[in-house]
This record gives sequence, C-alpha cells and structure tokens, in this order.
Amino acid sequence: MDKKALYSLSYGVFMLGTRSGDKKNGCITNTCFQTANDPVRVAVSVINANYSCDLIKESGLFTLSVLSENVSFETIKHFGMQSGRSVDKLADISLPEDAAGVPYMGWSACAVLSCKVLQSIDLGSHTLFVAEVTDAKSLSDDAPLTYAYYQSNIKPKPEKKQETRAIKAWRCRICNYVYEGSQLPADFLCPICGHDASDFEPVYE
Amino acid sequence: MDKKALYSLSYGVFMLGTRSGDKKNGCITNTCFQTANDPVRVAVSVINANYSCDLIKESGLFTLSVLSENVSFETIKHFGMQSGRSVDKLADISLPEDAAGVPYMGWSACAVLSCKVLQSIDLGSHTLFVAEVTDAKSLSDDAPLTYAYYQSNIKPKPEKKQETRAIKAWRCRICNYVYEGSQLPADFLCPICGHDASDFEPVYE
Repeated sequence: MDKKALYSLSYGVFMLGTRSGDKKNGCITNTCFQTANDPVRVAVSVINANYSCDLIKESGLFTLSVLSENVSFETIKHFGMQSGRSVDKLADISLPEDAAGVPYMGWSACAVLSCKVLQSIDLGSHTLFVAEVTDAKSLSDDAPLTYAYYQSNIKPKPEKKQETRAIKAWRCRICNYVYEGSQLPADFLCPICGHDASDFEPVYE
Repeated sequence: MDKKALYSLSYGVFMLGTRSGDKKNGCITNTCFQTANDPVRVAVSVINANYSCDLIKESGLFTLSVLSENVSFETIKHFGMQSGRSVDKLADISLPEDAAGVPYMGWSACAVLSCKVLQSIDLGSHTLFVAEVTDAKSLSDDAPLTYAYYQSNIKPKPEKKQETRAIKAWRCRICNYVYEGSQLPADFLCPICGHDASDFEPVYE
C-alpha cells in the first residue's frame, strides 16, 4: 500500500471545542464531514490519545468551528500543538460558548456547529463520532481554510540556513581524510578509504 | 439552525467505484475522509437511494478515486448526473479494475483507494460506511480537486443571455403604460399609476 496516496484526500481545518463539567478544551482537527442531511448528521474522527477525545466521551458534546483562511499560525499552534492535559488552553482566552456551554472560536472562523454524539466507533488509533447537529451558525463570509491552504500559506516554511562562510576544504565522512581546496572535483575518490565525492562534507573558514 | 453554515465544510471530489458480481457502477461523491491511520480506515457517506449504495451493501467493496483539478465537466456529468439504475455508465468506457475487480478512474485522478466495508451505519438519508483500506495507489501528481474548485472552475456558469436588440420603448409592469423612447429618464413616474422607473421593463425592436 502506498500511504502517500492518502495525502491526496482534501480536508477543511476545524477547531474542535469540548466541555465536560468544568473541564473545557479546544484542539485542531481536519477530519470532519457532513454525513447526512435529513436529519443533519456529521462525523468527526478524533485521536484516542487526545484529551479532547476523553471530554467528548464524557459529555457527548462538541462544537466544530470552521476556521477561515485568515487564521494565524499562532492560533493553530495554541490549539493544535499542545495538549489540554498539561495546559489550560482557555485560561487566558475568552471564547464564546454555545447553548450547552461548549466553547467555540471567537475569531478566524466561518461557522460553528453544535453537536451531540449519537454513536462512537473505536477504530484503534482514532474514535469516529457520529453526531446530531443541534445548531449551526454562520460567523463570517471569509473563505474556509483547507488543509492544503494551511500547508502552503500558513504553516511557516523551514528557514533555509544561509551559509555565508567560505569553504576551505572537504572532509571525508567515512575516514576523516581532508581534501584542501574550496572545490572538490566531482569524480574525486578518497585516497584513504576510496569513497566518492558524495561522502565528503564542507569544512568552513 | 442556519443550514448555510454547513456549506463552509471543505470536501474533495471522488469517483466511487462499485461492483457486485457482474453489476458495476461509478458515481461522484464528496463525503470521504481518512478516519484512522493505524490501521488505515476511511469513512464514506452514500445516499441511501443511490444504486452505488445498494452495490456496496451487497459486496462490501468499493474504490475511491481522488479526482484531480483537470477533470472535465463531461466526466462529472457522466458519473454524477445519471443513475446506474437506468444507464450502464461503464458500457462504452473501459475502466481499470483493482485486485477485487472493482472499477476505478483511468484518467483525471490523483490516487485510488481499494476499500472493504467493516461497518455500515444507516443515518436516514445516507449510509455511513467505515472501511478498511486494502490497497492505495498514487496515479498522478496533479492537484486534487476540491468541491470549492469544482464549483468555481469546472461547473459551467449559467450563460448570460446577450441582448443585442435595440430598446424602442419602456413598459410599466404595473399598468402597461408605454413610454416611447430608448432611454427612460431615471426620475420618470408613470402618468397612469404613479410607479417609478424601477417598475418599467424594456420593449425591444
């Protein structure tokens, strides 16, 4: 199986809001779709190890805020790259809540759905929740964020380390033999171990 | 509930290939996501009234071809806008088949997943199938089609009727009074019923 083939599935990006009693959380998910229209049902898939999964199992409630293209990476990082088990993500943030008291996004969101779990299916790594949509509200006319847009426009690119120092020599990674000179000939072979130019690394000034 | 809020969910567009014995079909769907990665599971939602839904229920098998942005509207129309109950959509088309003999897209597709149903959940209008991905294959590097891209770039726009005839007069929609002349003054009031210029329609040569 070529698992890369699965990367071509398209997704939106959502803030999944949860609450069980006084415990509240928000995380980022991309696996959500409307699965029936009469009555309106959605399905969402949540990693079993996630704190959000525990809270949904406890209360049977969640919100799905459809994030918009103008969401910042800081927002994604805040909700998506730390666990609600170790950090209270809502401590310094005031989020609006739906009729059941479940938090949802107060900014950078197009819409919010309030959901009530009908069925949970444990699939090993994830639990698939099938839910009734108890309320739905448009929040803005901004374009909904897709996972592809997030990858190419919001997620920071790794900075290319600009190497400004001059190369004075090349070292063989295998035997440490050093070739003096800034340019290693492409067909060079190490006189000690016999490895070729691709096994040499630059030595800077 | 504002049902328009549900329009902001993002989707890909897929050709859902099905086979039960000698019966084969293909239809277009947008409701599919990967719901677990260990083991790999997908969920797909299919309208109960669809022929494809019957075939999946019979054989427990389907393929999901991830359509690419270069798909033509004719392809979408062929698979998506007629029923396999009344037309054999594969009669004049030679489609490749996976190891289980289920057809998939031979063009305009990025990838294909072969799937085997594990669980079916009847949700009224739709059935949600949770399936094991038995095989996955990349087919091209083309960009995967999203439903939003389909709506704005592939689905034909309703043609604006080009009006080439000259206007010879304006008729009041309320009382049928006719103003002779090609230009109705913006502040004109109908001498019969008193309605203003916005209630007049052009009369052509």
